[in-house]
Amino acid sequence: MEKSALQIARAAYRPKLPAALVGGLALKEGAATESVADQAAIKELFPNTYGMPFVTFESANTPLQATANVGVILSGGQAPGGHNVIAGLFDGLKKLNPDNKLYGFLGGPSGLVDHKYIELTADIIDEYRNTGGFDIIGSGRTKLEEKAQFDSGIEICKQLGINAIVIIGGDDSNTNACVLAEYYLQKNCGIQVIGCPKTIDGDLKNAMIETSFGFDTACKVYAEMIGNIERDANSAKKYWHFIKLMGRSASHVTLECALQTHPNITLIGEEVEAKNQTLDEVVTYIAEAVAARAAKGLNFGTVLVPEGLIEFIPAIKRLIAELNDMLAANQAEFDTIAADDKIAYVVKHLTAENAALFESLPATVSRQLALERDPHGNVQVSLIETEQLLAEMVGKKLDAWKKEGKYVGKFATQHHFFGYEGRCAAPSNFDADYCYSLGFNAAMLIASGKTGYMSSVRNTTKPADQWLAGGIPITAMMNMEKRNGKMKPVIQKALVVLDGGPFKYFAANRAKWAAETDFVYPGPIQYFGPSEVCDQTTKTLALEHE
Amino acid sequence: MEKSALQIARAAYRPKLPAALVGGLALKEGAATESVADQAAIKELFPNTYGMPFVTFESANTPLQATANVGVILSGGQAPGGHNVIAGLFDGLKKLNPDNKLYGFLGGPSGLVDHKYIELTADIIDEYRNTGGFDIIGSGRTKLEEKAQFDSGIEICKQLGINAIVIIGGDDSNTNACVLAEYYLQKNCGIQVIGCPKTIDGDLKNAMIETSFGFDTACKVYAEMIGNIERDANSAKKYWHFIKLMGRSASHVTLECALQTHPNITLIGEEVEAKNQTLDEVVTYIAEAVAARAAKGLNFGTVLVPEGLIEFIPAIKRLIAELNDMLAANQAEFDTIAADDKIAYVVKHLTAENAALFESLPATVSRQLALERDPHGNVQVSLIETEQLLAEMVGKKLDAWKKEGKYVGKFATQHHFFGYEGRCAAPSNFDADYCYSLGFNAAMLIASGKTGYMSSVRNTTKPADQWLAGGIPITAMMNMEKRNGKMKPVIQKALVVLDGGPFKYFAANRAKWAAETDFVYPGPIQYFGPSEVCDQTTKTLALEHE
Repeated sequence: MEKSALQIARAAYRPKLPAALVGGLALKEGAATESVADQAAIKELFPNTYGMPFVTFESANTPLQATANVGVILSGGQAPGGHNVIAGLFDGLKKLNPDNKLYGFLGGPSGLVDHKYIELTADIIDEYRNTGGFDIIGSGRTKLEEKAQFDSGIEICKQLGINAIVIIGGDDSNTNACVLAEYYLQKNCGIQVIGCPKTIDGDLKNAMIETSFGFDTACKVYAEMIGNIERDANSAKKYWHFIKLMGRSASHVTLECALQTHPNITLIGEEVEAKNQTLDEVVTYIAEAVAARAAKGLNFGTVLVPEGLIEFIPAIKRLIAELNDMLAANQAEFDTIAADDKIAYVVKHLTAENAALFESLPATVSRQLALERDPHGNVQVSLIETEQLLAEMVGKKLDAWKKEGKYVGKFATQHHFFGYEGRCAAPSNFDADYCYSLGFNAAMLIASGKTGYMSSVRNTTKPADQWLAGGIPITAMMNMEKRNGKMKPVIQKALVVLDGGPFKYFAANRAKWAAETDFVYPGPIQYFGPSEVCDQTTKTLALEHE
Repeated sequence: MEKSALQIARAAYRPKLPAALVGGLALKEGAATESVADQAAIKELFPNTYGMPFVTFESANTPLQATANVGVILSGGQAPGGHNVIAGLFDGLKKLNPDNKLYGFLGGPSGLVDHKYIELTADIIDEYRNTGGFDIIGSGRTKLEEKAQFDSGIEICKQLGINAIVIIGGDDSNTNACVLAEYYLQKNCGIQVIGCPKTIDGDLKNAMIETSFGFDTACKVYAEMIGNIERDANSAKKYWHFIKLMGRSASHVTLECALQTHPNITLIGEEVEAKNQTLDEVVTYIAEAVAARAAKGLNFGTVLVPEGLIEFIPAIKRLIAELNDMLAANQAEFDTIAADDKIAYVVKHLTAENAALFESLPATVSRQLALERDPHGNVQVSLIETEQLLAEMVGKKLDAWKKEGKYVGKFATQHHFFGYEGRCAAPSNFDADYCYSLGFNAAMLIASGKTGYMSSVRNTTKPADQWLAGGIPITAMMNMEKRNGKMKPVIQKALVVLDGGPFKYFAANRAKWAAETDFVYPGPIQYFGPSEVCDQTTKTLALEHE
C-alpha cells in the first residue's frame, strides 16, 4: 500500500513521555475523592468505585513489573491520536512484561459484546504510530449499559486471559467504563477497567482532566482552513463566509478557532443560551456587524457558527419540544395530510409564539422541521444547515435595512462546514505525545491494580517531561442528570464557561475583530520546525492555565 | 496585528532561485517562434509581438544593470504565491538598480485604468514574503480589452515614470497582457508588458510553461483534507463522501488530488466529454462501484468530482443551450407564468430529448435551472451542487437495484466542496520558490528590453538551482477561438490530456482504488522537515516529465 512522504517520515516520530513514566516508577495515593455533585446518589450506585483517591506516578529506582493481558476499545466519534493511545498502551504493557498481550476489540464496544477482536502485535502497532483515524480496530457507538453485555465481556476476557479493559471514549463512554468497572468489582471477576478522555469537542475536561485528546489537532486543522478562507475574503473583498464547525453540545471548537484566527463574528452557543437570545437577535447581531463594516467599504468577512447553535437558542428549543410533542400526539392525522398542507397544519396546531417563530424561518428549514423526522419521530435538528440559515436571514434583514436607508453595501455569501476534515487528521505533536502518554499511563494504572479510573496526564501547558501522570476516579467527575426521562449518573459535560479565561479573552477582543480586519493565519500543522511552531498547545488550554 | 507562530517563522524563509539568476547573467536568444495554431491570423493581429524568439538566461560574469520603474497587477482569482512573485520582482528590480521603483495597481487591472496604486516599499514587501493571498494590492476581474483602458494606462505610467507592467494572471489575463504589449509597441510609448502564469486550476501550461503557480499548493491543501476524510471514512465505515473540487474548465485539480490520495472514484470532465457520457452513465458508473464495494461489506468510500463536471456532459450542455435559447425567446411569456407552473412550461417547450433529461433531474436542480438565471438571462450552471446531485441520483439508482435484488448494502452520504480553502494558503516551498523565481525573472526580462513575453521557469521537477529561467513570447501560445460569437486570439487552455502521463497512471490504477481501500494520506504541507516531505512537486508535474 502506497504511503505519502509525510506518512513515512512521521512513522519515525518518538512521542515524548512525562519524566515519571520514563524509568522506574511508583504510585502515590492522594486524598479520597467525592463526586462533583449528588454525592449520596453516586455513592449508592458505585459502592466499590466511589471515593477512591487521586493517584500520581513518581519516579522510582525500580521499574514496575506486572503481568497483564489487556483489551482495548475505541468508542464513538474519531479523534486524532487514538492510535497513539493504543501504541502507548502497547509499549507500556511490553515494558511491564514482554509477554503481556494487547487485544483490540473491533468496531467499538460491540466488539467486546460480540467477541470480535484481534491481537495487536508489534507489526500492526508500528503501522499506526502517529497516524490519524481509528481504523486500526475501528470504532462504534454501541453503549455498554446492560448486564448481558457486561457478562458477555467477562466470557471473552476469561477466554483470552484478559484482566483489564481500556475504553477510549468521550463522557458517555467513560461513564459506561465506570459502570463496567463497578459491575466487575461486584462480580469479583478480576477485570479492571480504565478510561481515556477522547473527543474533538473538548467537552470532557475538569479540574484533573485538562483536555480531551484530539481537540488540539482538530481545532488546528479547522483553524488552518478558516485562516485560508479569511485570507481569501481579505483578498477578494467580496464575500462573507459563514463557517459552521462540528460540535453540537458545546462550543469549545468554535471558541478555540476564533482565538486562533480572529474572525469578524463568532457565535458561542453557551452565551446565546445564557443571554436567552432569540434567533432574530442573533441575526440582528450579525447584520449589524456586516452593516458597520459595509459603512467602511468592507463588504467581506467571516462568521463562525457552532454546529449546535440552533439547539442553544431557548426559543428554538421550545419550538422543537412543542413540535415533537404535537406531532407525536397527532401522528395519525398528520400522516393523512397532503404534503403541501403539512406546513399550514403545523402552524395551526402550535401555540402562537411558536407558530410565529416557525413561520419566520426560511421555507427550507420549516419544511425540514415539519417533514423530516428521525426513526424515533423526532424533528431532525442536526440536518438544519445553520450556516445557510443564518446567511439567508441576515441577507433578508439587510435587504429590509437597505430599503429603510439604514444599510448601504453588498452582501454575497459562501458557506462551509468543517468536521470530517479534522476528526482523523494525523495528530499534532501535542496530541501524539499526550495520547501516547495517556495510553502508556493506562498500562501503569493497570499494573498498579487500579479500576474505575481515568488515565490522567496533567500540567500539559509545560514541556512533556514536566507533565504529571496518574489517575482520577471516574466517579469523582459524576453527577446525576435526567436522560430520556430518568435520572442517571453521568460525567458532567464541560460547556464553555462564560467567566473562564478563553471566553473572557474572546469577549474582550471581539468588537475589535468585528470592526477591523484583524485575521490571523495559523497555517497547516507543522511537525518538524521550530518548537514555537510545532509544539504550541491550544489557546484554550493556555488561557485556562494563565 | 497578531501573527501566528508559523507566519512569523515562515517570513524568514529565503526562496531559492535558478542558478542563472543568482549572480551575473546574460540573455541568450533562441529560435523564432510560431503560434500553436492559426499562424496567419495571429501574426496579423500581433505584427510587432509575433514570431519573437524564446529567450533563456545564462550565468555571466557581470551583473545585469538597468533602470526601470515597474507597475504590477494581480488579475483574477487568488492563487498561493502571488505575493512571492511580487517579492521576487521587487528584489530583482532592486538588484538591477536600488533606485528602481515598484508600483502596485490596486484591485486588479482596474487599478491601471482608474489610476489606483501604491508604491511597494521594502517594508510592505517584507510583510508579505511567503504568505498566501493577494491582499498586498488586491485583485480584480476587469478585462483589459479596450483602447481607452490601454490609453488610460499610458497616462498613469507616464506620470509615475513606469516603463514596464507585469500582469500576474491566468490564460485570459496573459492574452490581454499580450494585446497590451502589442498596442504599446504600436504606439511606441516605451512601456513593456510581461505576464506571469497564475491559476490554481492548472490549465495554463504548455511545452514551455510547465505549470501555473498556485496549483501545487492548492492541490496539496485539498489533498490534505481529502486524505483526512478518507481516513475518517475508513474508520467510521459508514459514509460515502462526495467531494467537489474547484476548477470549472479543466479537471487538473481533481486528477492531481486523485493521484495524491487514491479515492475510490474520480470523475474527470475531459473523459466524460470524450466518451460522450450521459449523466445516467456517470451515475451508473458510481453506483456500480458502490454496489461492488457493498458486496464486500465496504459501505463507505470517497468520490472526487470536478466543479465543471456538469458542463462536460454533452447531453447537459445541449440541454443548457436549448434552455438558454428557449427562455430568451419566450422571456415575456415565461415571466407571466406562475412560479408553480414554470417547470411544466419548460418541459413543454423543450425538445423531447432535453425534456426527458430535464425531468430526470432532481427537483432542486430542475427548479434551479428553470428559475434562477444570471443578469445576462443565462441558466446558472455554477450554482448546481453537483456533489449533492450525484449523491442523490446514485442513492435513487441503488434503491431501484435493491428492489431488483441487484444490490445489498447501506448508502449514507456526506458532501464537501473545497475551493476557497486552498486559493489563499501560504505557498508550499515549491510555489514559494517558483513564484519568487518567476517574479525575479520578470525583472530580468524587463532589464533585457523584452515585451509580450511570459516569464518562464522550467525544469521544475529538478532542484531549484537547476531550474531554467527565460521568457516565452505569448503569441507562441495562442490560437483563434470563438468567444461570444467572435473569433478571438487566445492562449490555448490546457485541458487534461487523456493520453498524457497523469491520466494514464490514474486510468491504470482506478479499478484497484475503487475495489480496494487504498487510500493515501498526504497530511498538511510541511515547510521545515526532510526534503522528500517538503519539496515534492505535484504528481501531475512528475508524471508529465517522466
